[in-house]
Amino acid sequence: MTVRAAVAGASGYAGGEVLRLLLGHPDVEIGALTGHSNAGQRLGTLQPHLFPLADRELAATSAEALAGHDVVFLALPHGQSAAVAEQLGPDVLVVDMGADFRLKDAADWTKFYGSEHAGTWPYGLPELPGARATLEGSKRIAVPGCYPTAVSLALFPAYAAGLVESEAVIVAASGTSGAGKAPKPHLLGSEVMGAMSPYGVGGVHRHTPEMIQNLSQAAGEPVTVSFTPTLAPMPRGILATCSARAKPGVDAATARAAYEKAFADEPFVRLLPEGQWPSTAAVHGSNAAQIQLAYDGTAGRLVVISAIDNLTKGTAGGALQSMNIALGLDETTGLSTIGVAP
Amino acid sequence: MTVRAAVAGASGYAGGEVLRLLLGHPDVEIGALTGHSNAGQRLGTLQPHLFPLADRELAATSAEALAGHDVVFLALPHGQSAAVAEQLGPDVLVVDMGADFRLKDAADWTKFYGSEHAGTWPYGLPELPGARATLEGSKRIAVPGCYPTAVSLALFPAYAAGLVESEAVIVAASGTSGAGKAPKPHLLGSEVMGAMSPYGVGGVHRHTPEMIQNLSQAAGEPVTVSFTPTLAPMPRGILATCSARAKPGVDAATARAAYEKAFADEPFVRLLPEGQWPSTAAVHGSNAAQIQLAYDGTAGRLVVISAIDNLTKGTAGGALQSMNIALGLDETTGLSTIGVAP
Amino acid sequence: MTVRAAVAGASGYAGGEVLRLLLGHPDVEIGALTGHSNAGQRLGTLQPHLFPLADRELAATSAEALAGHDVVFLALPHGQSAAVAEQLGPDVLVVDMGADFRLKDAADWTKFYGSEHAGTWPYGLPELPGARATLEGSKRIAVPGCYPTAVSLALFPAYAAGLVESEAVIVAASGTSGAGKAPKPHLLGSEVMGAMSPYGVGGVHRHTPEMIQNLSQAAGEPVTVSFTPTLAPMPRGILATCSARAKPGVDAATARAAYEKAFADEPFVRLLPEGQWPSTAAVHGSNAAQIQLAYDGTAGRLVVISAIDNLTKGTAGGALQSMNIALGLDETTGLSTIGVAP
Amino acid sequence: MTVRAAVAGASGYAGGEVLRLLLGHPDVEIGALTGHSNAGQRLGTLQPHLFPLADRELAATSAEALAGHDVVFLALPHGQSAAVAEQLGPDVLVVDMGADFRLKDAADWTKFYGSEHAGTWPYGLPELPGARATLEGSKRIAVPGCYPTAVSLALFPAYAAGLVESEAVIVAASGTSGAGKAPKPHLLGSEVMGAMSPYGVGGVHRHTPEMIQNLSQAAGEPVTVSFTPTLAPMPRGILATCSARAKPGVDAATARAAYEKAFADEPFVRLLPEGQWPSTAAVHGSNAAQIQLAYDGTAGRLVVISAIDNLTKGTAGGALQSMNIALGLDETTGLSTIGVAP
Repeated sequence: MTVRAAVAGASGYAGGEVLRLLLGHPDVEIGALTGHSNAGQRLGTLQPHLFPLADRELAATSAEALAGHDVVFLALPHGQSAAVAEQLGPDVLVVDMGADFRLKDAADWTKFYGSEHAGTWPYGLPELPGARATLEGSKRIAVPGCYPTAVSLALFPAYAAGLVESEAVIVAASGTSGAGKAPKPHLLGSEVMGAMSPYGVGGVHRHTPEMIQNLSQAAGEPVTVSFTPTLAPMPRGILATCSARAKPGVDAATARAAYEKAFADEPFVRLLPEGQWPSTAAVHGSNAAQIQLAYDGTAGRLVVISAIDNLTKGTAGGALQSMNIALGLDETTGLSTIGVAP
Repeated sequence: MTVRAAVAGASGYAGGEVLRLLLGHPDVEIGALTGHSNAGQRLGTLQPHLFPLADRELAATSAEALAGHDVVFLALPHGQSAAVAEQLGPDVLVVDMGADFRLKDAADWTKFYGSEHAGTWPYGLPELPGARATLEGSKRIAVPGCYPTAVSLALFPAYAAGLVESEAVIVAASGTSGAGKAPKPHLLGSEVMGAMSPYGVGGVHRHTPEMIQNLSQAAGEPVTVSFTPTLAPMPRGILATCSARAKPGVDAATARAAYEKAFADEPFVRLLPEGQWPSTAAVHGSNAAQIQLAYDGTAGRLVVISAIDNLTKGTAGGALQSMNIALGLDETTGLSTIGVAP
Repeated sequence: MTVRAAVAGASGYAGGEVLRLLLGHPDVEIGALTGHSNAGQRLGTLQPHLFPLADRELAATSAEALAGHDVVFLALPHGQSAAVAEQLGPDVLVVDMGADFRLKDAADWTKFYGSEHAGTWPYGLPELPGARATLEGSKRIAVPGCYPTAVSLALFPAYAAGLVESEAVIVAASGTSGAGKAPKPHLLGSEVMGAMSPYGVGGVHRHTPEMIQNLSQAAGEPVTVSFTPTLAPMPRGILATCSARAKPGVDAATARAAYEKAFADEPFVRLLPEGQWPSTAAVHGSNAAQIQLAYDGTAGRLVVISAIDNLTKGTAGGALQSMNIALGLDETTGLSTIGVAP
Repeated sequence: MTVRAAVAGASGYAGGEVLRLLLGHPDVEIGALTGHSNAGQRLGTLQPHLFPLADRELAATSAEALAGHDVVFLALPHGQSAAVAEQLGPDVLVVDMGADFRLKDAADWTKFYGSEHAGTWPYGLPELPGARATLEGSKRIAVPGCYPTAVSLALFPAYAAGLVESEAVIVAASGTSGAGKAPKPHLLGSEVMGAMSPYGVGGVHRHTPEMIQNLSQAAGEPVTVSFTPTLAPMPRGILATCSARAKPGVDAATARAAYEKAFADEPFVRLLPEGQWPSTAAVHGSNAAQIQLAYDGTAGRLVVISAIDNLTKGTAGGALQSMNIALGLDETTGLSTIGVAP
């Protein structure tokens, strides 16, 4: 079978990454590419790394341009996906890489995004308990945020196995592509090279409720999250350092056993051998996640660290992985676990 | 008055930074420069940025070579300072940038460094309560580690003011110069560019007991520390993200007031205006520390973030600052709060 | 058909890149992996980005270990390939990624490498006139150096078409992986980040005679090359800026026409649309080369600029491309023209 | 004597660097700071590295705001300096860091900048033969462009000594701060990290006629320049690789002798010892220039390479150096030859 896929928002980083991966997907034929301010331009100048699509022209994002496809990927600014999705009809698989349909709690949405909640779609993080069942055959997929992907993979096994207390402390470093392609002074190369700096400190980052939602579901009880994102001087990658107080009786062995069990059959998650630690460089351009953990007996905390590529596993790769499940394809089709390093 | 200063270990990063700063100190005359494997070489090839010293030749590190100076800076591998210091006599100001004399607890030293404890010298972090008094007139100074400097500045006011519970969680990112100049495969540019990765996870990093020592002293009770260092793709800088559970009654206002009080008269610490966050780029090459804090009401934690240059305020700049105090000079002589940015 | 491939020198950058690409080649089965100092170690710690091969153990490089394969890739230090190749027999396809068999002139070899010349093998730059014919069915392939690949692609059309005089001036910037994985102080991340610096200036770089050989062959007369390599603060990529005095009558149009003709049917070379310039970021991890040219009427020179990934098109990708030709496979099998960007 | 200095355009990179250096100048008192779109904002948020000026507020750029100072530094967009300078009166020292008054040939100005030529001021590159005499006591200074500074220092001795033919080929790599602080997509950190790319190829870069002017003056005859600038993944620094065909009889010794003579008494130019090559890292934040040369006998060319900090010696440092001369101060006052490295 050949799936015709369209991409709305093809000029941005998420859209470009989806196209990079779709070009390597044996069952996908790339259809319409749309943009907003870039409509009418050729992709070769906007995404010069996508050589095979260099001569493709961007159409203006509209229901007409996106019609007639089996799958439509939405890489649009937050709040714009609902209107487009409605017009695409119930039989088209719509994969939203924006935030619109990730949260279950409408109040959370309004608190963090300020607008009215559009709804909740099946959540595209297949590794979460029960997630695959909700994705199979679905026509709507909400792709997780990049930080929630990294953090949920690191901590859900600990909460699912009851290894830790309900207060998680998370500090994550992200490459600059996570901030998007819109030019802003603080994202200039001159500003970010040589610079580590935090932002959205104090629980105000929009990915926080999404992490709480995932971890609380795994724990079966409310989990609190102290999340601090930092901007790192690299184009891609997220390194998430997560910890929580270990429950009585938990030690290094029990913790490791729980993680080995959780990821035993996961094609894209690698629990590293003891002594080896995750690095964003090792997953550059791949859909893999590297995980490692340590039990700090003195501090009484379990520390779990994950590394992913924010654009691949954290966005477009996760989107294709969920698409594969929804369409009944092999989950790994067109996705690689091999990083581009050094 | 003119102070004659010698530097043992002048070919490394700490030694080079001390020389960079000493060259700008109006009261210091640079005397002997010594090295180990580099003895006999000219500094111009080892430290090409130190133009005025390019033709100076390194002597072999020995008591003879270091004799006849008012101040001797030791930038030697851990465990080698004691033997040298003994031979320098009690009247010479010895500033040790190694770890040998930082810890008060001999058991901690042996646990983390494996050798016998050499002793404890006055601790060169002047901003800590009571520290200046112990440094004035002292002939021996133990310069703090770079991570403990960043972390102690971020958290001591919270503990001194009783704002937070006794469990601190710290994740810090450091530039690669913190790992030194000895060539190791994982420190190659090809490996570190584009890479964020942790190391010394689980409470095993040697700077952990030093943080515990400083924070427990400020708190007046034992503090536990969960510390995770990460290597960031930049040559210099430390960004420390520190948090602890806020005590009942603490809020953003009380916390900020405590920090404003703690740093009101500090020449090198800048509590940033609300809404502005620290960046390592802003303190590049300077002796300044940037601090900002946030109270996360949902998570119930106080988050404090500090940025320093690991080689300047974190090592050589802190060393000169303490030297100034010990010698009765103005504490800020020869030190700048101006970063080299972008 | 399935080809069994072995890689000698699997722990280095060239070896790792060959493995990254072989993992995506549908007709190749990866056999023996050998190393020298790393023999006995698992690949997972040496090449953590090669997830599927993490548990493979390196054997010591020997004829026995490499026996029984259809193709053997040699990623060995210069001068070590000949001895190994001899023992592999005439029926095995040996692809040497070292320099040993690139040069035709034994005197050049001895002048630049200091040892005795081992011989000359078919040269693995298929885009050069006549190259494919020499590669088809060959059992020995000398993979070009990374700089000669970038420079020859940029200038051979100009010389083949007689557009320029015989003196070429070339300045190229390379990512640090081109310097290999052996830890040296000047390659530390602390040293290379923020640094542009030249090396091998004045015609002494070992890739110079290889460029002269390729360009002289294209010109049908001796070409002189002034080549200056520089080290750039990035892990991968080569940007080669090449120029030569234009011959009378040459202008922008005639030059562009010659380049369009030269690359019209090349699957991996993209002559960019006018106004767009090559970037190493656009070919990161891909086997593509980007080319653009300008005729500078005031200076009377033709300026041609090429961008490649030094490890892919510049080494391992070029090796697979030539292997495909030698084995009668489609030249593009297992090779991508899609870069990993941003 | 204390000089009151104002800076117009204090929010940009050139303006920020002038302020960084003025803060260290013992004879200067910093007066008015002006901006355009940033008027009314505090400098602490615009230039967070300038700690001592954090609370200073930007005024709108106007003759009134800039009145009453001894020196006014103009860091304005090209073409805006003349109007401001006119209103400042003849007794104020006006140091223009823009391009407006650099060129002598009005036709060149119009060709490369498109507007009418405003005039020609004494040229602020003191190292050029005769330059200091024109700067002493002058009330107007045109600060050279960053590329012309690096290139002129590298090649003027060769042309002044008649070592080379009249065709110079130059390829230079610049840090991203040279492109300014205005946010543009291609200058985003995500785009520039990992990327080397050229721009302004084919003699169209606006700094080309300035190089030709300087080198032709040194040669006493017309010099042609093929100049290709490239953008490098670093915030600061220029590495210029310059070459020209050596005249008969010239060899390594004669060339080196000419350069030793040319720079013997220059406080900011360091001709490196043979075998050592310039690096932008070594001059980071300093007013020094590193120079090295090689005679390529095979290619018959003299290759000269220079490294400077584009913002310091290339802009603001050069501006202060010329200001010192104009005011009769020691030329080196407030300027350092010490780089911030690693």
